[in-house]
Amino acid sequence: TIFTFQRPLNSFGMCDRTKNTNIRLSLPAVCVVWEIAMIILFGVFIRYNWESDAHWAESKHNLSDIENDFYYRYPSFQDVHVMIFVGFGFLMTFLKRYSFGGVGFNFLIAAFGIQWALLMQGWFGSLDYSDGKIKVGVENFINADFCVAGCLIAYGALLGKVSPVQLLVLTLFGVTLYAVEEHIIIKIIHARDAGGSMVIHTFGGYYGLAISWMLYRPNLDQSSRLQGSKYHSDVFAMIGTLFLWMFWPSFNSAIAGHGDGQHRAFINTYLSLAATVLTTFALSSLFQKHGKLDMVHIQNSTLAGGVAVGTAAEFMLTPYGSLIVGFCCGVLSTLGYVFITPFLEKHMKIQDTCGIHNLHAMPGFLGGVVGAITAAAASDTVYSHEGLVNTFDFKDEFKDMVPTVQGGHQAGALCVALIFGIGGGILVGAVLRLPIWGDPADDNCFDDEAYWEVPDDEENIIPNIQYNNHMQNKDVETIKPHRRKRCSRCF
Amino acid sequence: TIFTFQRPLNSFGMCDRTKNTNIRLSLPAVCVVWEIAMIILFGVFIRYNWESDAHWAESKHNLSDIENDFYYRYPSFQDVHVMIFVGFGFLMTFLKRYSFGGVGFNFLIAAFGIQWALLMQGWFGSLDYSDGKIKVGVENFINADFCVAGCLIAYGALLGKVSPVQLLVLTLFGVTLYAVEEHIIIKIIHARDAGGSMVIHTFGGYYGLAISWMLYRPNLDQSSRLQGSKYHSDVFAMIGTLFLWMFWPSFNSAIAGHGDGQHRAFINTYLSLAATVLTTFALSSLFQKHGKLDMVHIQNSTLAGGVAVGTAAEFMLTPYGSLIVGFCCGVLSTLGYVFITPFLEKHMKIQDTCGIHNLHAMPGFLGGVVGAITAAAASDTVYSHEGLVNTFDFKDEFKDMVPTVQGGHQAGALCVALIFGIGGGILVGAVLRLPIWGDPADDNCFDDEAYWEVPDDEENIIPNIQYNNHMQNKDVETIKPHRRKRCSRCF
Amino acid sequence: TIFTFQRPLNSFGMCDRTKNTNIRLSLPAVCVVWEIAMIILFGVFIRYNWESDAHWAESKHNLSDIENDFYYRYPSFQDVHVMIFVGFGFLMTFLKRYSFGGVGFNFLIAAFGIQWALLMQGWFGSLDYSDGKIKVGVENFINADFCVAGCLIAYGALLGKVSPVQLLVLTLFGVTLYAVEEHIIIKIIHARDAGGSMVIHTFGGYYGLAISWMLYRPNLDQSSRLQGSKYHSDVFAMIGTLFLWMFWPSFNSAIAGHGDGQHRAFINTYLSLAATVLTTFALSSLFQKHGKLDMVHIQNSTLAGGVAVGTAAEFMLTPYGSLIVGFCCGVLSTLGYVFITPFLEKHMKIQDTCGIHNLHAMPGFLGGVVGAITAAAASDTVYSHEGLVNTFDFKDEFKDMVPTVQGGHQAGALCVALIFGIGGGILVGAVLRLPIWGDPADDNCFDDEAYWEVPDDEENIIPNIQYNNHMQNKDVETIKPHRRKRCSRCF
Repeated sequence: TIFTFQRPLNSFGMCDRTKNTNIRLSLPAVCVVWEIAMIILFGVFIRYNWESDAHWAESKHNLSDIENDFYYRYPSFQDVHVMIFVGFGFLMTFLKRYSFGGVGFNFLIAAFGIQWALLMQGWFGSLDYSDGKIKVGVENFINADFCVAGCLIAYGALLGKVSPVQLLVLTLFGVTLYAVEEHIIIKIIHARDAGGSMVIHTFGGYYGLAISWMLYRPNLDQSSRLQGSKYHSDVFAMIGTLFLWMFWPSFNSAIAGHGDGQHRAFINTYLSLAATVLTTFALSSLFQKHGKLDMVHIQNSTLAGGVAVGTAAEFMLTPYGSLIVGFCCGVLSTLGYVFITPFLEKHMKIQDTCGIHNLHAMPGFLGGVVGAITAAAASDTVYSHEGLVNTFDFKDEFKDMVPTVQGGHQAGALCVALIFGIGGGILVGAVLRLPIWGDPADDNCFDDEAYWEVPDDEENIIPNIQYNNHMQNKDVETIKPHRRKRCSRCF
Repeated sequence: TIFTFQRPLNSFGMCDRTKNTNIRLSLPAVCVVWEIAMIILFGVFIRYNWESDAHWAESKHNLSDIENDFYYRYPSFQDVHVMIFVGFGFLMTFLKRYSFGGVGFNFLIAAFGIQWALLMQGWFGSLDYSDGKIKVGVENFINADFCVAGCLIAYGALLGKVSPVQLLVLTLFGVTLYAVEEHIIIKIIHARDAGGSMVIHTFGGYYGLAISWMLYRPNLDQSSRLQGSKYHSDVFAMIGTLFLWMFWPSFNSAIAGHGDGQHRAFINTYLSLAATVLTTFALSSLFQKHGKLDMVHIQNSTLAGGVAVGTAAEFMLTPYGSLIVGFCCGVLSTLGYVFITPFLEKHMKIQDTCGIHNLHAMPGFLGGVVGAITAAAASDTVYSHEGLVNTFDFKDEFKDMVPTVQGGHQAGALCVALIFGIGGGILVGAVLRLPIWGDPADDNCFDDEAYWEVPDDEENIIPNIQYNNHMQNKDVETIKPHRRKRCSRCF
Repeated sequence: TIFTFQRPLNSFGMCDRTKNTNIRLSLPAVCVVWEIAMIILFGVFIRYNWESDAHWAESKHNLSDIENDFYYRYPSFQDVHVMIFVGFGFLMTFLKRYSFGGVGFNFLIAAFGIQWALLMQGWFGSLDYSDGKIKVGVENFINADFCVAGCLIAYGALLGKVSPVQLLVLTLFGVTLYAVEEHIIIKIIHARDAGGSMVIHTFGGYYGLAISWMLYRPNLDQSSRLQGSKYHSDVFAMIGTLFLWMFWPSFNSAIAGHGDGQHRAFINTYLSLAATVLTTFALSSLFQKHGKLDMVHIQNSTLAGGVAVGTAAEFMLTPYGSLIVGFCCGVLSTLGYVFITPFLEKHMKIQDTCGIHNLHAMPGFLGGVVGAITAAAASDTVYSHEGLVNTFDFKDEFKDMVPTVQGGHQAGALCVALIFGIGGGILVGAVLRLPIWGDPADDNCFDDEAYWEVPDDEENIIPNIQYNNHMQNKDVETIKPHRRKRCSRCF
């Protein structure tokens, strides 16, 4: 007979027997142990702050309930929350057979990271020295989401090449590094960074790239047929793109000052993002044969304007200033996808699945520079005296600060973010190279089969038809099986 | 010739001629009659309340416009609204050929239910005795969404096995039962249940399970090949999961007290959900061969923490208390999917398509227990006196209530929810067994073809190829046609 | 051998060599030039308004930060933003091979349009005559989103048949026309239109239909096999439908008056939409063979109630009045899909891909009529005196206006919207007929291949199998290739 279905494909010899992706012991153990640790530490340290404690009824005095910080920040918090879980999660579903891993592991590490971030950031920033407790309210939860964003950015570089246990380790260290870095930048250096161009994006971007460099896989291109998208996986990724794009104004304004600060941060971000879309479409078309648009650019580079305007979002950047930043970012980020990502992979041994260098690292760095310049150029005329003090927090020990010096501090902060990102990434990358974390062999990269029960789509039948047909034609080279079957001996 | 396409598959004999799914008369009739009834009843009863009436301009006196309840609750309302329509809707798209029915019928019954709920809940709770009118504002609309959630939970157990007309009947009775149950629990028993662990989830869960028990289909496994997911239908379901997960803090805080109440309810829910994710991933991996994760668990059990913290969300549960609740729920719910759901189907004749027993019924019950304990343990020290009065509404006729007694009332309320769920479900199930509702035959279950014009995907060609090939090989047993063709005589 | 794969299909002769869809020069040029123009114009004209300027700290006097307009409107703005980018974007993904174009070009023209709208609307409405600057705050950004909505509606009629460059031209003119029309309707005629039934939907709908009439393609049905949906593209479109449906209450209340105005606009819209869902399901089932539901109706007609209640949303329409409007709209819109759209295509030469006539044009017109009647019937008794003045803005030069006259003004405004839509559409349609815009040949319509790098799904192999099989059977008529291959000479 011509056709024999359900024929095992193990004759393809795709198994790498040196790697074992069975995480049946390690993943449950890590999750349960860490969650128990969280419960104990929360029990010892975390309490409601005065705005979320029932004592508010007595302690609020003449304040109206509507002046509880909850009403200033909760709508923005929810937008940020959507960015973290749906935005980042769905942006990473673009691979044809790694959508479960993209959205699922994003979910896992974000849910873990926010708990650890509440503790780490709390020890540095919200500790009540009178009773040794961390007092949390809505702003802490926004900051926890921000902190996790740094780790999710790093995940973008590693997408499809690491195990969930590695991701949990990456997140544990990443959150720790972030909290220290943030404390140095915001409290010690006294830099301003409402949208986290430096603290989140520069740090997270270089953290991920450094880890990717440490985990370089020289033979990865062998499985590159899975490293692309499908028609519908690209549409799924657009869900991520759009929720990130739409809610980025909330991201950059979420912890900005009450009143004009949040208002202005939203405006600057909105405008920068709008400009980025136009230059991204322009460059994407310009650098493709026949002028066709590339979904990779549309999904990613359109967001770069939000990153680059992060630090300066609450400053008087002016509306046209925001447009200029967005304009440049769309160009820079798309060029990055066209030229820099291939260069990094070929010559620098940095494999960057999602192109975080173009979406976060470079635009984040640019954002730090824009922030430093804008801060240095601030003046009483533009801000009003009280506005200047409010915006740059020139109070208490920093009450004698002047804008030009502030600009210098901003530049210093950018260096700190870079150092923490690269240095931390190299250290954590070394840890992740230990052969105990259940990472996939090159052949299993970008394949949900490694860590997920994947439903048997009827589509699976196709490659077999093709296979058999091709066999007949002795044309083995062109076989593109839809999904590899895994050798049963490997488990 | 070897291949003959478009060959009718009616030789498969899949038609059950005793069932007629043609709803061309019944569905339009029910929809139009009920909508006209709604218009008349709204005309007689429903009016704007003082905060949404144009008289507000004169009647608000010294209040600022920002103190209109709209600004306290509208952002939360919108999040709840997203949960009802996108959250529940997309969570039910996971079946490979029932995505239209999942998201579409969810849309239909929610849109109908909210209207009926405004009336039913209004008669019990918002009736202005001076003029006999129900006065509605934003809080009524949140409560209507809540009420519908109970029916949508019940739909989860029946997904793929009932007709839209049955669902409308289920919703009509479900909303009615809910309104009575809610009135008894909240007003008469004076229990607190901001997030609806008892009122919504325990009631809705057992209501659906009891109906499913009444509608048991002993031969259903014959069409079980449609009772699974596809790769992309699982990704669609993750949209539902994530929007439910992200906005659950808004669900539990939407009708909590202004100020600290909403603030605290959000914090408790956020933390409980975060902990649930970790234990769900842990247990999912632990109970699968090779430690692979199961999308069913990730899509559903990760949400159980939000259910279980519902009643206690606005109490001083403490952050670590929330983590403990979430921890237990992730374990309990995942174990439910692994052990209890198969047991219920085999031994209790309860077929639970979405596993609502694990996601709503059990966690809801647990939430009621947690609420009772937390209420009984409340004290002036922890809440402040005014905080205690505010949180538990110890006012007017209940001004002499003490926390321990309140705990007892909470436990009593839980029993009421259980009784209404199980009892109501049996009654409504009996009604739904009447042979007039156009429900599908066993063979048409989980198949959108029964009630929807389904586009002709080119994929449909595949099974035919397979079919013909197999015919040649005399290997009929392994045929898995992608979609059954329906016998034309049945219509 | 029986099968020969990768066989080029150019023997199908599907190439129209008179059209060139290469936009490698035109798209980048237009995007970059216009973005630079935006930067210059923003530099000259656009500044922060007093609520987003750092001077707020000094100029707010006794206001609390929470009374900054940002907190009144930002949550609604974000919902509107989601409607524009995800709602409209995903609603247009329903075509089987035009999902990239649907969501992608929607993204491009919305991002461009909002910038131009800020300028155009600013010159008419927010110009500070003391310094010649446009002062922008959150309300301007909501209005910019509204303005773009008009153009996106027009895109719906043209979906799949125009190039991105044409869409940018359509948007440039559309925004300009909208700004003039809005100024005449709101400022000169002094009509009220909070939800934009007239200004947005009537204008946008007829603008798109008139352009479609000008760009009539008599031979389009040749490629009609691509003008349908797939199973999963229909599910994607439901994302758009639901986000539009859920957030429409925010759309209609976003720029309504503070306090009761926003509160009431939300209630009216919510109720109207709920009623529409029921009659849409009823009519969809009634007009299909076997009573099956049609996804086209569920995706679109369920939204018509939100359109029709737009103008009257902030009036005292009463809850049952809203239900009646929604009831009628569901009927009208579904009938439109069943009878009017085919009629328009056959006899009026108007090809309306998304059916905007049924979703926007007709319901928008109806909304204008409802608004005129409701305004004419307003009275001091129903609104209170101050409420009437607030709702209809009977102040300054219009302080002697009475409701009946206002009703006449509303009717006049509706005519203005119609004239601008039809007239503007004809003019812009004439411009778009120039052969310089890179629009696709009939055979390339509804096909992403024309403007996008489309990933090579394995599914593509199917038609070839089919093709070869059929060739053998000499049964050429039934061939439905999944995706056309494009003739390489055409590029």
